[in-house]
Amino acid sequence: MSNEKHLAVAGATGAVGIEMLKCLEERNFPIGELTLLASSRSAGRKLSFRGSEVEVQELTPDSFRGVDLALFSAGSGISREFAPHAVEAGAVVVDNSSAFRMDDEVPLVVPEINPEDVALQHGVIANPNCTTIITLMGLQPLHAEFGVEQVIASSYQAVSGSGAQGIVELEGQIKAIAGDGEVEKKIYPHQIAHNVIPQVDAFLENGYTKEEMKMQNEGRKILHAPDFTASVTCVRVPVYRSHSVAVTASFRKPVDVERAREVIDAAPGVRVMDDPAAGLYPTPLDATDGDDCLVGRIRKDLVFENGLSFWVVGDQVRKGAALNAVQIAELL
Amino acid sequence: MSNEKHLAVAGATGAVGIEMLKCLEERNFPIGELTLLASSRSAGRKLSFRGSEVEVQELTPDSFRGVDLALFSAGSGISREFAPHAVEAGAVVVDNSSAFRMDDEVPLVVPEINPEDVALQHGVIANPNCTTIITLMGLQPLHAEFGVEQVIASSYQAVSGSGAQGIVELEGQIKAIAGDGEVEKKIYPHQIAHNVIPQVDAFLENGYTKEEMKMQNEGRKILHAPDFTASVTCVRVPVYRSHSVAVTASFRKPVDVERAREVIDAAPGVRVMDDPAAGLYPTPLDATDGDDCLVGRIRKDLVFENGLSFWVVGDQVRKGAALNAVQIAELL
Repeated sequence: MSNEKHLAVAGATGAVGIEMLKCLEERNFPIGELTLLASSRSAGRKLSFRGSEVEVQELTPDSFRGVDLALFSAGSGISREFAPHAVEAGAVVVDNSSAFRMDDEVPLVVPEINPEDVALQHGVIANPNCTTIITLMGLQPLHAEFGVEQVIASSYQAVSGSGAQGIVELEGQIKAIAGDGEVEKKIYPHQIAHNVIPQVDAFLENGYTKEEMKMQNEGRKILHAPDFTASVTCVRVPVYRSHSVAVTASFRKPVDVERAREVIDAAPGVRVMDDPAAGLYPTPLDATDGDDCLVGRIRKDLVFENGLSFWVVGDQVRKGAALNAVQIAELL
Repeated sequence: MSNEKHLAVAGATGAVGIEMLKCLEERNFPIGELTLLASSRSAGRKLSFRGSEVEVQELTPDSFRGVDLALFSAGSGISREFAPHAVEAGAVVVDNSSAFRMDDEVPLVVPEINPEDVALQHGVIANPNCTTIITLMGLQPLHAEFGVEQVIASSYQAVSGSGAQGIVELEGQIKAIAGDGEVEKKIYPHQIAHNVIPQVDAFLENGYTKEEMKMQNEGRKILHAPDFTASVTCVRVPVYRSHSVAVTASFRKPVDVERAREVIDAAPGVRVMDDPAAGLYPTPLDATDGDDCLVGRIRKDLVFENGLSFWVVGDQVRKGAALNAVQIAELL
């Protein structure tokens, strides 16, 4: 029997879907058959994979016959509607949406952090929120060493976090302003060109956005740390790709900056870029198209006794979404 | 005797100098004679003020004869060199640089917060750092009500904070990228177009930048709160004008979000723009060219028991520099 899988990608034509195909190619994922699925609008399009053209089919309840593994990245609504059909057909679903993340039956996995949770799956494994993944990639090695208790963080989130349309909106606005044209707003409630917007996703009763609460809610589940608290401000910035997060964390044990650099650098999937004297720290451009999250600006915090502040950057289309999903698939 | 002053502006042709002239005009400041000073490079240029053209003169040690009031905004080096000459000539100096801010003999004043400190001057009054002013405009009303203890903040700082050259650099890079040209870097160590840079000013031994330490150092002096601690990450973003700051603060007394909105809105120079349900919060574009700092996203913090998080935006060329200096001059 072959080790090769019949793999389906639902939402194949989106920014994350296309990046998933790139990751599957690069990592030489053992695929026997590949089914690309999208809405009827995109059906018939052809995407190239390993040198051949694969035709995109319309996603329907019957799309998953014979599929071993289905990667979903088409939004929560689609996941809720079609993931059960995939599971019923015998596939394991890796879902990039927020639909099932907080479901007790569904493991929420960052392969470098809690790979063992994959074993608890009942057909669906959830891929965490992009800003949460990137922050935890820097935080987890510190948690393992010092024991994290609290996080206060502010994000600098790229427009590709809103999919291809976010990129189109920023490009269009920059062009319109340069040419004295009218600024069109479809994706964001305010102009994003030459501006920052302190809102990502919808507001909740407590004054936080859904995006902001994910760091605490998903962080607790991924780190197995039910008392972990996180207070976050999520901000959209006019950057095309890669999210940055300014993180302040308090720990149970005394901290040490040199040791912090060592444990982060020793961890998989994350790299230290931190030499203030030499002006070395990561920016979004440094992380773009890379697999690793990058950490710099590591310093003793001035407010918390056992506190560290740091700056972490990651390509949220890759590690924040597509790559993490493919890594989960590899664990299966 | 006339109430009108002989006023000098040193650094008149810079971004802040020009904004100072605008503020003096708008606020109908009682000026009998106006002397505009700059480097020899800019001497001879003419700037318009109240309908007439005023010729810029070269700044020399003798420039201050007969001057009552000198507004300096030409960098620390120039202030250190020439402010003593101005004081010797009998002028009171309002200095926008960091040269004298932490000097015990020099009051550091935000007119809405500590106007009484002006009386302690011995010839020089310092204008605080722009990010510190904007943050304190939102924080001080909360401090008065609840008693601030600690602040953790992340900034989103516009390129005009680096003067006119910062604007030129961002514009040039955006054009170069759109036209496939080469990105030139003169002001910032990394590309700022479509990127963010977690460094403003030079690094200190403790891993923080000078800019980041100003919030604690200057904040203690302005608020008369010697135990106030602040842990800050300052980040340059591709915005032309107005700084934003995501602030988390812990207080001595229990906090209340509605009361927080009330006390901020009742304070001078600051306005609440905060209705998450209606998607209302300030962005840099909302604050630009305005006198008021704008506060939104006020919510109970999830980490500190008596904590509040909020988002404050202000035009750093105006309230962060020129306007605040003119307001100090008005107090004299």
